[in-house]
Amino acid sequence: MNTTKTINLKTRPKGKPKLTDFEISTTDIPYLQQGEVLLSSKYVSVDPYLRGRMSDAPSYVEPFKLNKPISSAIIAEVLETKNANFNKGDFVSGMLQWKEIQTAKGDGLSKVDKEQAPLSAYLGILGMTGLTAYLGLTEIGKPKKGETLLVSGAAGAVGSIVGQIGKILGLRVVGIAGTDEKIEMLKSEFGFDVGINYNATENMSAAIATACPEGVDIYFDNVGGEISDAVLFNINKFSRTINCGAISVYNNTEPPKSISVQPFLVKKSSSMQGFLVFDYVDKHPEGIRKLSEWLEQDKLKYTETIMEVFENIPQAFLDLFEGKNKGKMVVKL
Amino acid sequence: MNTTKTINLKTRPKGKPKLTDFEISTTDIPYLQQGEVLLSSKYVSVDPYLRGRMSDAPSYVEPFKLNKPISSAIIAEVLETKNANFNKGDFVSGMLQWKEIQTAKGDGLSKVDKEQAPLSAYLGILGMTGLTAYLGLTEIGKPKKGETLLVSGAAGAVGSIVGQIGKILGLRVVGIAGTDEKIEMLKSEFGFDVGINYNATENMSAAIATACPEGVDIYFDNVGGEISDAVLFNINKFSRTINCGAISVYNNTEPPKSISVQPFLVKKSSSMQGFLVFDYVDKHPEGIRKLSEWLEQDKLKYTETIMEVFENIPQAFLDLFEGKNKGKMVVKL
Repeated sequence: MNTTKTINLKTRPKGKPKLTDFEISTTDIPYLQQGEVLLSSKYVSVDPYLRGRMSDAPSYVEPFKLNKPISSAIIAEVLETKNANFNKGDFVSGMLQWKEIQTAKGDGLSKVDKEQAPLSAYLGILGMTGLTAYLGLTEIGKPKKGETLLVSGAAGAVGSIVGQIGKILGLRVVGIAGTDEKIEMLKSEFGFDVGINYNATENMSAAIATACPEGVDIYFDNVGGEISDAVLFNINKFSRTINCGAISVYNNTEPPKSISVQPFLVKKSSSMQGFLVFDYVDKHPEGIRKLSEWLEQDKLKYTETIMEVFENIPQAFLDLFEGKNKGKMVVKL
Repeated sequence: MNTTKTINLKTRPKGKPKLTDFEISTTDIPYLQQGEVLLSSKYVSVDPYLRGRMSDAPSYVEPFKLNKPISSAIIAEVLETKNANFNKGDFVSGMLQWKEIQTAKGDGLSKVDKEQAPLSAYLGILGMTGLTAYLGLTEIGKPKKGETLLVSGAAGAVGSIVGQIGKILGLRVVGIAGTDEKIEMLKSEFGFDVGINYNATENMSAAIATACPEGVDIYFDNVGGEISDAVLFNINKFSRTINCGAISVYNNTEPPKSISVQPFLVKKSSSMQGFLVFDYVDKHPEGIRKLSEWLEQDKLKYTETIMEVFENIPQAFLDLFEGKNKGKMVVKL
């Protein structure tokens, strides 16, 4: 029996995750059973939402188990097959374990076409990232041409796609990010109308007011915390907030405090709604069709930060909380 | 020219309003113009939302002007008429000024039928209060039979109607109020399944968990603040919060802080939405029809706290913030 390197969750992070919360071990690869495929991981997705699964608080998905492998979206190559739906040499995408080599059942895997787009794109623009941007913005944001869309975490994987889709749909798009370099990228590469560097801004609420002279109709929120507090002072009547993530507070050990949203929502007949891409599986095919179409027409660009080597997966994950990635963070094996 | 007593806003309240923020003066009654009616106020509605209009911060309605009369929903009798739509002796409802006698244009006034319901009911169950309860619950709450509805400010004008409509629609209904007497009333008079006295409860989050063993599907929020913080720990996947009011924080001079809602909304794919009855005017006739029907079938009860004498209008308003009212607070002239 052969062995493979595996990354386990060793301790549940307290606050910000550390490298020592993870452990690399060597485990056996079980013999291939009927209906299974043997997979070699090629690209591993690291995502902020994984932080939630590392705690044992109840959430929308089951927590990771201690001393067991972490899993995330992975693109892998089929090395051997005992499943008639997959051939040797196929590339597949699925929620897989952080292992170099693993066996998996066929259900839950979908084939991806190396010719149509680079393999890593299926973890980003044509995967959960792109679908989150597209479905969050359209299903909850309900954008109307001419409205103002504000995006936090705008240089991140989801945010940079949200902004571009906003432009395609005829919105004024304003992005919030943490460095001047990122702001420049938002404007020059992704077509955002204006950007705000929150690390260089004293009064965020005033900066948003200046950047959004007609107020904020749609707020695509990836960060929560103080930035989202500042947005409240600028929301329009009937505005919609898509709560896609709250990366700024994921590492808090106590429930964080913010300005109370209730009086603002009441005053502005405004809504906030949590968005999870897995709740909209019936709309995924439509979303992938749209995104592929725009990608083909060169209307969508995407950025990836690709780290290398299996052992660096935990570091890549940690880097997300330091904002070190531009666009989708992926580890190439 | 005759005169009338008038209540003006003298100073904009800082924090909790005081009697000295109001001033009673005597003003002239202008001669009746063509198209106008001369009105004698009979019942004056005092409502928490008026607090917002006493500040000069931008809100959904224009702030009251200093040294000018305050206005609210009022039931009045037509004393004289130069408008063909109204006869002497008619009773009308409208947004009118805090005056004993006043002239008004006909538009914005609607006739009310003294035989069908007591006059004060048109300020409550058959007025904005009932419509707020009915439309907030149905349009935003989207209740499904068997779900759990939690109501804060449950013994208040809106809350007590929300709970009853919840029961009519087949929900499990839990109410939060501030005295044992109110809790008893919720259960015995209004049919709530369970009540929680927040003044006698150490750990609100645990008390809500006990009262709502299957979690909270719909939260009708009249209060905001710490009570709403505690609710967050008990919301279900896909739950809906109707943000109808935030009376607990209306008197704060600084934007109040609460537990950040964003991580909860993300985890639970949950929504919060500000509700204002004036945004749904096209649904008002349907709402009044429904409410009248239920009232006639004895499915709806309502409670009023009726204070007397014109001069007591400011005190009645202040009493709202002390929770002294049961149900709709009205001043009878």
